[in-house]
Parts: sequence; C-alpha cells; structure tokens
Amino acid sequence: MFAVSLPFSITAVDPASRARRGTMLTAHGRVETPVFMTVGTRATVTGLTPEDLRATGAQVLLGNTYHLMLRPGVELFERVGGIHKFMDWDRAVLTDSGGYQIFSLPGDRTITEEGARFRSYIDKRMHMLSPEQSIAVQTAIGSDIMMVLDVCLDSTSDEATTRAAMERTHRWALRSLAARTNDRQALFAIVQGGIVPALRKESAAFLTEHPFDGFAIGGLAVGDKRGEREEITSLAAALLPADKPRYLMGVGTPPDLLQAMLAGVDLFDCILPTHLAWQGTAFTSSGRVKITRAAYAHADVPLDEACLCVTCRTFSRAYLHHLLKCGEPLGPRLLSMHNLHHYQALMSDARAAIERGEYAAWAKAKLEAIDRHEHGATRLGRRLAPLSEEAADVVDVVDVRIGEVE
Amino acid sequence: MFAVSLPFSITAVDPASRARRGTMLTAHGRVETPVFMTVGTRATVTGLTPEDLRATGAQVLLGNTYHLMLRPGVELFERVGGIHKFMDWDRAVLTDSGGYQIFSLPGDRTITEEGARFRSYIDKRMHMLSPEQSIAVQTAIGSDIMMVLDVCLDSTSDEATTRAAMERTHRWALRSLAARTNDRQALFAIVQGGIVPALRKESAAFLTEHPFDGFAIGGLAVGDKRGEREEITSLAAALLPADKPRYLMGVGTPPDLLQAMLAGVDLFDCILPTHLAWQGTAFTSSGRVKITRAAYAHADVPLDEACLCVTCRTFSRAYLHHLLKCGEPLGPRLLSMHNLHHYQALMSDARAAIERGEYAAWAKAKLEAIDRHEHGATRLGRRLAPLSEEAADVVDVVDVRIGEVE
Repeated sequence: MFAVSLPFSITAVDPASRARRGTMLTAHGRVETPVFMTVGTRATVTGLTPEDLRATGAQVLLGNTYHLMLRPGVELFERVGGIHKFMDWDRAVLTDSGGYQIFSLPGDRTITEEGARFRSYIDKRMHMLSPEQSIAVQTAIGSDIMMVLDVCLDSTSDEATTRAAMERTHRWALRSLAARTNDRQALFAIVQGGIVPALRKESAAFLTEHPFDGFAIGGLAVGDKRGEREEITSLAAALLPADKPRYLMGVGTPPDLLQAMLAGVDLFDCILPTHLAWQGTAFTSSGRVKITRAAYAHADVPLDEACLCVTCRTFSRAYLHHLLKCGEPLGPRLLSMHNLHHYQALMSDARAAIERGEYAAWAKAKLEAIDRHEHGATRLGRRLAPLSEEAADVVDVVDVRIGEVE
Repeated sequence: MFAVSLPFSITAVDPASRARRGTMLTAHGRVETPVFMTVGTRATVTGLTPEDLRATGAQVLLGNTYHLMLRPGVELFERVGGIHKFMDWDRAVLTDSGGYQIFSLPGDRTITEEGARFRSYIDKRMHMLSPEQSIAVQTAIGSDIMMVLDVCLDSTSDEATTRAAMERTHRWALRSLAARTNDRQALFAIVQGGIVPALRKESAAFLTEHPFDGFAIGGLAVGDKRGEREEITSLAAALLPADKPRYLMGVGTPPDLLQAMLAGVDLFDCILPTHLAWQGTAFTSSGRVKITRAAYAHADVPLDEACLCVTCRTFSRAYLHHLLKCGEPLGPRLLSMHNLHHYQALMSDARAAIERGEYAAWAKAKLEAIDRHEHGATRLGRRLAPLSEEAADVVDVVDVRIGEVE
C-alpha cells in the first residue's frame, strides 16, 4: 500500500519563481510545505511545552540524535515507545543524524571510514556513531524523518578536503539506506560539496540516483557568506528532483528563508528564533527588538502591534524588559513563543502567496522591508552618528548564528 | 458604602479545633479562606504565566515591595496603573512590606527609627524604606492587601533585642496606618515578639487596638524549631480578633499549614513549592520525590498517580528526570505547576473538611500520612542502612527553607 515512506505532492508552483506549495504525509500527520521546523534538540524546545509549540503553529519538531543517544539514551526510547510518547508531541518529528555535532562540538573523537568514535560529555564513556548506529538510534527515537550521517566541515575548507568529505558522505548515505528497518520512517540524503558548484552537482547527481525520500542541502551557514549561501542553495535545489521534498539544513534568518523558497526549498530549521529569545531579542514586523534596552523600560505597548501571538496579545514591552532584566525565565519563554509564532506566520504567509501565484513579488517586498528595518538604521547611523545599538545587534546576531552549535 | 477595605466573613468553624472557613472580599475579587498565596516576588512566579497560575488554583499572588521598588520601580507602576495590569493578573495581590528583605539580605544598610537606608543591588544608589515610603510604594504597586513595615530578626535573638524590635514595629505600624491614602487597599499589621509568649501577647494586644484590616504573625521560620513555631502560632492566633483575617507569614511546609489551620490561621505564603521545584523536588501524595534520582530515569509513570495537574496528566517521571538532568527550564516549570497544584489541592481539601465540620480528624490523618511518608524512610533507614537518599532530601529541604531569603 505504502509505496513511499513520505508521500509528497506539489499543489501549486509560483509562476515567477521556483517556489512551490506542497503537502507531505508523515506517520504523524500531514505537513504543509514550505515548512519551518522548530528545533527541540533534547526532546524539548527550551522552556516550552508541546501545547505551547502547537499554539505557535509548529508542524514538525527537530530532535538531535547525538544529544538524545547520550541522554535519555536508546534504551529509554525503546522502553517508552519513542519520542512522541516521551515528550507528548503528536505531530511530525525529524531527527538530525548527529553528524553536525560530531564534527562541530569540541571533544575527544576519532573519525574513520567506519564512523565517529567519541567520548560522551555526560558519562565520559566512548561511543560509536556510524551510519548504521545513527539509523538504529533514529529508529528507536521513532522520528518520522531520519537523516543520513554525513561528514560536515567548514565551508571555507579547500577543495580536496571538501571532495573527500563529500565522497565519504555518499558512501555513508548508501550504508544508511541499507541499515534502515522501518519503512514508516522516511530517510533523507544530504547533498554536500561546500561552496564548490562542481562538487554540489556531483553530489546531487550521485545521491538522487538512490531511493531516498527527500534530499537535504547540508554544509551551509558554517562560515559562508550570505551571497555564497544563496548561490549554492539555488544551484543545489535546482539539481534535486521536483517530486521529493528539499530541506535546507540549519538556515536561517527570515531573509534566508524567503530567498531559499524562491529557489524551491521546502523544509527549514534554525535555532535562531529560540536562541535569540534567550538573549532577549525579538523579531517584529518592524525589525529586531533588543528588549533589554533602557528605551523599553516604560514602553506600555505590545512587543509587536501587528502580531497575534499570546505574548503580544497579553504583555507589554515594559513587562518583557522587566523579566529579562531580572533574569526571570518567563521572559525568554514569552519571547520564544513570539519569535516562533513570527517564523510560523512568515511561512504561512509565504504558503498563501505561493497559492495565489504571487510569491516572487510578495517575497521581494518582504525582503526589501526587512532590509529597510535591519540595515536602514545601520546605513543612516554610519552617516549621522556612531553605529547605533540596533545595527550593533544585527552584527552580534550574525556572529552568534555562525558560531553556534546545537 | 465600603465600611472596611476587606469585608471578611466566617462561613464555618470546625467543632473540634479553631479551624475556620471564610471569604475575604478584595478589590480584585473574592478569596476563599484558608488560602495559600503564591509567591511572585518580582511580579512573576518564576517560569509561569498568570494563566498557568490560574490553572493551579491560585487566588492571591504575593509581590515584594523591596524588589519591586528597585525594579521596575514606582514610576513604572504609576505609569501603567499597578501590578495587575503590568503582569496581567486579575486576581488579588498582597504585597510584603520589604521589611524581611531589608533585615535579611546582605548589603550596605542603616536602620534607624526613621526607617532603613540601604544601597540598591541594581544601580548602587541609596534608597530609603520608611514605613511611609513602604506604603507609598505599595500604593503605587496597587496591591489589594498591603503590609506594614516591620522590624525582622532571628527568632533566637535575646529578649531585650526582641522587645526593642517589637516596640519599633508597633510605632512603625501606626505610622503606616497614618500614611495610607487608598481605602480600596487593605492594610495588615504584623505581630512580633519572637518566641517569647509574653511579648507576643503584648504585641497582639497593642496592634489589635488599631483599625487594621487583618493581622499577621511575623518572625517565624527564621531559626525557630517546628515545635516553637507551632506553639507561638497557636498562641498568637488565639489573641487575634475572630472577625479579621489572620496571616502566618512565610510558613511553610504542608504540615506547617495543616497545624496552623488547626489554630485558626487563614492566610499563608511560602516559597517552598516553587523553590523546591527549581531544585528538582516534587511534593506527591506519597511523599517528596527528588526527580533527578537515577531510579526515575526509566519511570514511565506519572509524577503522582493521584494528582490531576497538567504535569501529572501529561508527562512521565522519566521525562521530568530527563529535563532536570539536561538543565532544561521546562522541568522546573512543570514541577512548579505540580507543586503549586499540590498546595492548592491541600488547601481546597482543607476548606471542604472545615465545611463538613471534620477538619480536626482530617488534618490528623493527613499529618500522620505525611509523617509516615517523609520520616518513615528516615527511621527505617537509620535502623537498616545508611541514611537513605530520601532522608537526606528531607534534611536538605529544612536547610534550604531556613536559609532562604526571597
């Protein structure tokens, strides 16, 4: 009956771009694409309940194999019957393979053709994460979409290193496919090749020859510039089959999402909305707001007048400022709710624009508005005065995103 | 029309004890007594929204004048129109006067007959907290029940020191009464006198001669033993007028509450349920549970089978264990919800038992059950084995509560 693990259908295509509107049928329900997936690394989105996440409009939660295999561990997932029951999340889950953490987190590890041998940061014991082991762990976690273990490296690596990593990623992808045991769990391959167009082409050509349920574009937002990222995303997306979902991993800002949708990307994830919330920064319809600024201490107005999230409907900027200044966790919790709602509303508006056949024009206007809000202050500030606090925030944020490992 | 600020009526009295069931009409609605008030020191109960608090059954929130005058400050409360609007809390609020913090928190301060001059831990500026200033701040905060500024000291202080503190507390109480400007805000006096029965009698006799809306018993749970605390509570409560609410400040554990209700106390507050939640300890119908213990790592059962709170209805001990082990704030948030619900359910059951005229017998059975759960393990443990982890927890908890300043 179930010919593929992840039935995917395109319901509309934008006439002026490659943006597409689709639906993806997972073992835990239908997902409307393009979709932004909320990062819940350790079977929790910091500070939020599954009920909170549903209220933000989240359709898919992203868990992380590396963290979850160390704690709570495979045995727990086998005992309780997977992550959905463990954390009371009834919608779809995607699990990262652990590759990014193995290569990014500091620590004692050895990478061979077999896989990655590393020391647990919890009990100091050695663990093996091979392609087969990653699939076994993801099978126990019970995610709806599993990712193959890939070799991750900085996008500024030289071409020989990038090629070697890509070729091992391909061998590991085939081993992952062979290791799969549950056809209710979809499996995505990951296109690598850094910022070298020829390698990206080779990687896409190789992987799309095999029966994966979807394809991801990996290795971006790890040292590359925005222009490089957009170019490679656009190139790679065009090389992927039209009838399978395309996932741009770990990217990014609202402009990143808008651009990648123009290129035909369907799935996204990023820690930015929650990570910035815990630092006191909110995305709003008029640009980013650093709520700890003294200017907001007495601002008896909503965080974003145009937003319908529970935070904006209930609390003032002054109250959020107070909570953040006191180090009270309710502050980041309320900002997380808002930022996630902001992302989900952006995606929902994008889906509607694709359905109307107006995505290209809508995205262009949206990108210009964001650019005005985020960089207008910088340009003006440079002419008229020292770098404004708003501009300084933007710079901080870029640093944070590139350097961050979750 | 409004003869008193806080109409209070007794609707039932237990035939076998002094326990009483009443209702108190505040400017923000009716409060059913006996009542446990939730501590929200800085206009937030750590990690919880007002909606969460309503779900626990909270009727009254306790804010702290000392912390709130420093941040967000009087000007903010005047601008937004008080704490209810600031934090979106539509039920009653009681504000502590700041006395406890002035005397307990470390730091630069000078206490004179005028009041307390101290240095802000936020901006290092000097502030004055006099009886009049405390009332002015509480008026701006807009609490439904204000407390007089009192002189707090350790219950182990000598009698001369205790008498001097009590006498100054009396003079400050009269200055507070004179400083009051808004008759929609009730004002309570605080009986002091340490653990000296004669001083408690003198204090109650003096204060009850004046038109306060209620009377508190202060200066307990600050170095005294449980037996002393119960004796002084019982003595002081009996000296207070039957037609005014009686408030036992900062006390305590479920057994403390059960005992004090036997003595006719109507209002309580304590940081214990939330404070212990952030340490990973839950109150359950079968005793305290330290959720971080290895034994709960794979416990796929509710925290408390007998509890109907959202945490117990939704999540397992294994999930809560995982969250606490990961340092994820959702863990303490869920334990806070549970612990506050546990306290509110205890109070609601107590109110029902008073209405039935069975409080004394009900409380005795409840106290015996708690004693069995909390100390049974200790006694057994001492005979059979080294001090059990459960017993070690009980010891920890006592230390925490005595030493804690909020």
